[in-house]
Amino acid sequence: MSEPLLVRAARREPVERTPVWFMRQAGRSLPEYRELRERHDFWTVARTPELCAEVTLQPVARHDVDAAVVFADIMTPAVAMGVDVALVEGVGPVVDPPVVDASRLRVPDVVAPELAEAIEIVRGELDEAKAVVGFCGGPFTVAGYLVEGKPSRDFTNVKRLMYAEPDAWHALMDVLAECFARYVREQVAAGADVIQLFDSWAGALSPADYREFVGPYSARILAAVDVPTIHFATGASALLSELAAAGGDVIGLDWRIELDRGWDEIGDEVGVQGNLDPAVLLGPWDRIVDATLDVLERARGRTGHIFNLGHGVLPRTDPDVLGRLRELVHERTVEARV
Amino acid sequence: MSEPLLVRAARREPVERTPVWFMRQAGRSLPEYRELRERHDFWTVARTPELCAEVTLQPVARHDVDAAVVFADIMTPAVAMGVDVALVEGVGPVVDPPVVDASRLRVPDVVAPELAEAIEIVRGELDEAKAVVGFCGGPFTVAGYLVEGKPSRDFTNVKRLMYAEPDAWHALMDVLAECFARYVREQVAAGADVIQLFDSWAGALSPADYREFVGPYSARILAAVDVPTIHFATGASALLSELAAAGGDVIGLDWRIELDRGWDEIGDEVGVQGNLDPAVLLGPWDRIVDATLDVLERARGRTGHIFNLGHGVLPRTDPDVLGRLRELVHERTVEARV
Repeated sequence: MSEPLLVRAARREPVERTPVWFMRQAGRSLPEYRELRERHDFWTVARTPELCAEVTLQPVARHDVDAAVVFADIMTPAVAMGVDVALVEGVGPVVDPPVVDASRLRVPDVVAPELAEAIEIVRGELDEAKAVVGFCGGPFTVAGYLVEGKPSRDFTNVKRLMYAEPDAWHALMDVLAECFARYVREQVAAGADVIQLFDSWAGALSPADYREFVGPYSARILAAVDVPTIHFATGASALLSELAAAGGDVIGLDWRIELDRGWDEIGDEVGVQGNLDPAVLLGPWDRIVDATLDVLERARGRTGHIFNLGHGVLPRTDPDVLGRLRELVHERTVEARV
Repeated sequence: MSEPLLVRAARREPVERTPVWFMRQAGRSLPEYRELRERHDFWTVARTPELCAEVTLQPVARHDVDAAVVFADIMTPAVAMGVDVALVEGVGPVVDPPVVDASRLRVPDVVAPELAEAIEIVRGELDEAKAVVGFCGGPFTVAGYLVEGKPSRDFTNVKRLMYAEPDAWHALMDVLAECFARYVREQVAAGADVIQLFDSWAGALSPADYREFVGPYSARILAAVDVPTIHFATGASALLSELAAAGGDVIGLDWRIELDRGWDEIGDEVGVQGNLDPAVLLGPWDRIVDATLDVLERARGRTGHIFNLGHGVLPRTDPDVLGRLRELVHERTVEARV
């Protein structure tokens, strides 16, 4: 019984074709998800193992991608720590009042039991050649939502906290890292084959600030599991060495840097995931093909490429395009190996 | 009569100390500005030459920086083209309904006569050792506000337009470039010593998309004047060669990339402006000093450094800190040359 394609690629073993999945493949871009959401609110879906598993499996059934990524919100572990989070349509996670004080957070013995159950269901139903990707928000990104209270462009409250009250910042990151390490271990114990740490907004930091205020905490989370890990941030083109130093068998790239250039930055000892601009999928098919072949060309001759978008699927993406794209990558990368 | 320090630095001549100014130094961070705004709304200030000149000169009087940057909104030329722009507090420029069709825009014979008059006043009152920095929003950033209708994170409408209706996109950029070239020429004719093209959000693009959809238009604007130019974008760490290829005697860096690394990317034939994270100014003075000296150290031994923040002054910045920071940079860079 061989391991899933994506796991072998993440370990940089030679593979028969490039694995494909899409960040945010589960959820809002799929009619079957929107239909289910008419009957259940977000947290009901996320907290009912059968529904969560169903939504996690929907994009695999539809697009035949190489991985199911667990359906969870980036704030799931924060909610488990006692934070009141509202997911506001068109805004994002809102925490009112914001949480700055680490002593307001408690690390539960079990962070997300329903998610673990959902993963067991998914792992049981999924083709064994496909991977279950567990998912955890990065500590900077989650701290950002906690401290700013809502999505931010400048992260000025977060940065003021770092600079002016470093002890308070480190206490907050310490408790988040403790909880997130537990959270990813639970996901692996339940059957996740890979963990992606998704530190969306870490790119707001200078390299020096990342090293001082974030890297050590991400490193703890990534070191907590023995399955392959993917470490991802956006807008982090000048931060790739720092992300790689914190950990990850695979570094996720957004579209702002050419894939080969990004890979050169971090070296061939790690894999790379990415990196088509999700907005390209809103354009005509010819342009999608050209941009995709450019990504594949830049990965040619290296081991450890996982094809993905450079950020999550945009809500108004035509789901049929995702299926065609998966097929295109598979066809072309099989051919390239013949 | 020698030229202003900042002009000589922008030409990469050896200078007696590093010039300093701050993006967004005029405006919201200054009590004297807020006091004036209690009596006049934004557009009244921007369109009354005496008031505009007063606000432009305020930070020079207070901080003794090496340049006055003209007080204008990034949307000023769009308004002159007939676009209805609302500057919404806490949001940014709002264009409702959005403007996609280039035929809705007309290039006026004179884009901003009141701004030109303000520049004449400023140039007349300002110490000749100090520079007047003219300012123009970048064509991608302005097109972003026009097409999205408001500040955007993903620029999905803009990108959809580029990919699906490239002729419409190019027509829009063509008319913006025509107007902006005229706008910067007017500023130079009125006395601006330097022009900064401020394409804040160009970093949302992949390098290939920047080259295809934006670079040629920025190049036209930058080539329209014969004074030194500064070309700036944020989140553009992997786009610096593309920015430099489009033009600019000086490339502005944000804080996401170390100054020396960014400078290495573009080569020593151009100057560099930057690049302290404006959020650092919200922290304690010791940290500000350390971060500033790090920037200066990374610029050491090169010609053409202009000290600045990596983006605009944050509204809640203590103005006294800006003055101390200007003094620190001057002192340390005079010493370094002794």
